[in-house]
Amino acid sequence: MNHITLLIHCKDSPGIIASVTSFIHHFKGNIVYIDQHVDRQENVFFMRLEGEFDQNSFSYTSFKTDFQTIVATKFEMQWQIHPASVKPNMAVFVSKYDHCLYDILGRYQAGELSVNIPLIISNHNDLSHIAQNFEIPFYHIPVTKETKNKAEKKQLELLKSHDIDFIVLARYMQIVSELVINEYTDNIINIHHSFLPAFVGAKPYHAAFARGVKIIGATSHYVTEELDQGPIIEQDITRVTHSHTVKDFLAKGRDLEKIVLSRAIKLHANRKTMVYNNKTVVFS
Amino acid sequence: MNHITLLIHCKDSPGIIASVTSFIHHFKGNIVYIDQHVDRQENVFFMRLEGEFDQNSFSYTSFKTDFQTIVATKFEMQWQIHPASVKPNMAVFVSKYDHCLYDILGRYQAGELSVNIPLIISNHNDLSHIAQNFEIPFYHIPVTKETKNKAEKKQLELLKSHDIDFIVLARYMQIVSELVINEYTDNIINIHHSFLPAFVGAKPYHAAFARGVKIIGATSHYVTEELDQGPIIEQDITRVTHSHTVKDFLAKGRDLEKIVLSRAIKLHANRKTMVYNNKTVVFS
Amino acid sequence: MNHITLLIHCKDSPGIIASVTSFIHHFKGNIVYIDQHVDRQENVFFMRLEGEFDQNSFSYTSFKTDFQTIVATKFEMQWQIHPASVKPNMAVFVSKYDHCLYDILGRYQAGELSVNIPLIISNHNDLSHIAQNFEIPFYHIPVTKETKNKAEKKQLELLKSHDIDFIVLARYMQIVSELVINEYTDNIINIHHSFLPAFVGAKPYHAAFARGVKIIGATSHYVTEELDQGPIIEQDITRVTHSHTVKDFLAKGRDLEKIVLSRAIKLHANRKTMVYNNKTVVFS
Amino acid sequence: MNHITLLIHCKDSPGIIASVTSFIHHFKGNIVYIDQHVDRQENVFFMRLEGEFDQNSFSYTSFKTDFQTIVATKFEMQWQIHPASVKPNMAVFVSKYDHCLYDILGRYQAGELSVNIPLIISNHNDLSHIAQNFEIPFYHIPVTKETKNKAEKKQLELLKSHDIDFIVLARYMQIVSELVINEYTDNIINIHHSFLPAFVGAKPYHAAFARGVKIIGATSHYVTEELDQGPIIEQDITRVTHSHTVKDFLAKGRDLEKIVLSRAIKLHANRKTMVYNNKTVVFS
Repeated sequence: MNHITLLIHCKDSPGIIASVTSFIHHFKGNIVYIDQHVDRQENVFFMRLEGEFDQNSFSYTSFKTDFQTIVATKFEMQWQIHPASVKPNMAVFVSKYDHCLYDILGRYQAGELSVNIPLIISNHNDLSHIAQNFEIPFYHIPVTKETKNKAEKKQLELLKSHDIDFIVLARYMQIVSELVINEYTDNIINIHHSFLPAFVGAKPYHAAFARGVKIIGATSHYVTEELDQGPIIEQDITRVTHSHTVKDFLAKGRDLEKIVLSRAIKLHANRKTMVYNNKTVVFS
Repeated sequence: MNHITLLIHCKDSPGIIASVTSFIHHFKGNIVYIDQHVDRQENVFFMRLEGEFDQNSFSYTSFKTDFQTIVATKFEMQWQIHPASVKPNMAVFVSKYDHCLYDILGRYQAGELSVNIPLIISNHNDLSHIAQNFEIPFYHIPVTKETKNKAEKKQLELLKSHDIDFIVLARYMQIVSELVINEYTDNIINIHHSFLPAFVGAKPYHAAFARGVKIIGATSHYVTEELDQGPIIEQDITRVTHSHTVKDFLAKGRDLEKIVLSRAIKLHANRKTMVYNNKTVVFS
Repeated sequence: MNHITLLIHCKDSPGIIASVTSFIHHFKGNIVYIDQHVDRQENVFFMRLEGEFDQNSFSYTSFKTDFQTIVATKFEMQWQIHPASVKPNMAVFVSKYDHCLYDILGRYQAGELSVNIPLIISNHNDLSHIAQNFEIPFYHIPVTKETKNKAEKKQLELLKSHDIDFIVLARYMQIVSELVINEYTDNIINIHHSFLPAFVGAKPYHAAFARGVKIIGATSHYVTEELDQGPIIEQDITRVTHSHTVKDFLAKGRDLEKIVLSRAIKLHANRKTMVYNNKTVVFS
Repeated sequence: MNHITLLIHCKDSPGIIASVTSFIHHFKGNIVYIDQHVDRQENVFFMRLEGEFDQNSFSYTSFKTDFQTIVATKFEMQWQIHPASVKPNMAVFVSKYDHCLYDILGRYQAGELSVNIPLIISNHNDLSHIAQNFEIPFYHIPVTKETKNKAEKKQLELLKSHDIDFIVLARYMQIVSELVINEYTDNIINIHHSFLPAFVGAKPYHAAFARGVKIIGATSHYVTEELDQGPIIEQDITRVTHSHTVKDFLAKGRDLEKIVLSRAIKLHANRKTMVYNNKTVVFS
């Protein structure tokens, strides 16, 4: 069976669901999952649909042409189709912290993530041994203020030559510039170590400690040009008390960060997220 | 606009979603929500759909006839249609504990629950003053071993004369017999004060304390003949430590019970639950 | 038995715990609970101790004199003693929202809160019927820009004539000025309907919705002159998704607010909180 | 400074805290942490105290002798003293699942766990490569029904020759017999993949799925002879819905298991747990 995922968004209007589902049916497909959302404030319709088609008779090319002609044009849809058999290529960017990297690679090895990881890029060499253990190519590209532009160009070259679909910043301690963001809009996932929008920027656990909060959090979001302001994919929290030090916050935070980042990776890899208006629709 | 909710379940097969959505479209309806689930083990398809129809041209009678003829018969569907304008009638059964009752009536008064509450039935008179405050008829029907059958017949009379759709056992301290269950199958919601299936039966907090658990829970479920074995609608938990006494468990439990029960009431009142095979499908 | 609670803070130095516990022992008391905290950054010691003394031989007056002379002076302690038999007097301030008020009064009636509630003060008359149901005096003191000072003086008169120990702002929709704050420093508890420090100020759920967060929260804190900047007592959160509207945020928030506020009230009423440096120590 | 942890339990009686704290003070120690618990049902007193003593003048031998003579004998205490400078030796038992092992070794390498890990023992060879990556000796001791006794004797030999203080069963798929339990009473930590006491025994996620629960859990407990009945150290949960398969339960469970097990290891390694009456006191 050919298993595909269809992502659609367009202005809301009557008949969209019926048109799409009828099209699938006439194309001899079986819908195995359908979910939709309407943003009533913005009047935008979102849909995620999984369908199965007979291996022999199904043609991607004709599906794409026909869907555009028969359905998409009418509703002025923006849409993507993803064959389930093709896993996205994911690059991991790291610096010196290893907890997120270990977590990602452990899940990758266990077959939990529907991705390929062709490479790891880092501005430091500290974690190359982990890449080696998991047998994944590791590229050390140092970044300084002066070399940043050059370094990012080198990153982009590597990303393109490995056909990378999306990037995961696994506690990568450099701000990614618009050079890279523009090439990977809505395809760079960051983990911020606070409950955004509280504690934007550097040293959020120190700020949380100073404020005397009773709960700390971590937030995974798509990277946009404004620091820590991108669309939120996933958040989680844990309790703290007066007896915890900043060091305790950091340790508890590490557990949060890796779990939250991995959840975001899974959602993105399974095409369950859609971005609109600096927010995400996250299908279940 | 006529706003309706459609609940469907049937054997899974290709084309169901397309058939249903096309029918709605041809009936000049707009689908505002659609969700579905397939139980792959049992090969059963579940669907919940909300649609809007033009006030003037829409007829329930013809919708029902046509849907049965054109769609339902073909797929051997079991289905229900609910107009959003008609709120279900809910009876509340209580005994002596007041926390769930206060919570339900507070939400009812605040307009949070899409139900009518025509009456409260109790085997004790202790909470009649609350019913009075909220101006809801209160019927005191004492239950003893000897009078149980007679008491339940009296309950059923009241339920029928008030056209009750579903019953909420808000810490009602009597076992409901099959006499009532058969009349209200999948329409009696209980709150059990443990994390089922742990601690079935009486005094679950005492049992949890004795076992030394670090988390306690509450479970809302539909009532079936086997005690505390019915389909689970909603559960939640809270942390406890060695320093908490059974009395603390009871106090923390009260907060859990009322929140979990209210969530289950909302889900049921909004027709978001479907029961199959002693489990629930809970649409979001 | 005389049951007392002792709260102490002072500069940290060796021998404090031994001095205090020996004093209790020589005073023929039995320590039933002891907890302490040292803020290592500030080098401040905090202690909460519960002790039992023989009813006949125990004298508060001599305890106070002796403790000051023998222990407190040496370590330059700030300390309080509270007899468990004396419940603090708590005033509730409300406006139009009833969910927190219902929750507080339900718990009060159930004996869950170790407080007396001699009065409810409101700038609107909307909730007077609830006060009446629970048989608690209700004072309607309207507040406008022009009458604010006069209104607060009237509030203070009432608070003093009822010997109020602390104030709970149960969704009171007025900013309390320094006139009242100065009289009740660290004794005014507010519930803010966001996960502070995110979304300070008005309409936090609207701001949370606009930001596209996946978790919303509520925060109970002591009131200081800077709006929503006071020491945090308790926080909790709940999950939201793209499918929730602002109205859903508000409804979910109500459940959070009442639970978080009640927890804060209990902690304060049981003398489990200490304030230092705009943070709280919350003993378990 | 000499930093020590003192764990005490005995029958409750007046003066214990004063006696202990005065002793520490007279021994020129500074108490940096004190916590206590009284089980009122059983009338048992528990205490955990951390103290600092001057490096030069402090002698363990005289502390032990004097504490026994002056304090412990009087109250018939059972007590232990642990120097903070000595980390306990921890053995890890595994079989085929790697998620808990990765998590433990990642934390170990990051310096998060105050333990030494001299060896890993497994009844299968599958995970030896992980041990190798982290450079920890790996012993493959196959276990069959017939060889179990012999295998456990071999295990015990290894444990003794490495001076092992406690054992962690990181998804070790063999039942540990009394031979090992008796040598390591209250010193074998297991992770059970359910919310105990629900779903004791094999395949708990399958059982949870069949029951239709809305929350699944994991439980870390000390191993006793009765399967899954030992004192609970830590539990945690995560939400599931009708849309999750058993496979999803297993994946979500893996995240729970490793977090819950690591928390239990930390608590035990930091001497924060005390066992009494098949329950744990877990100090904060």
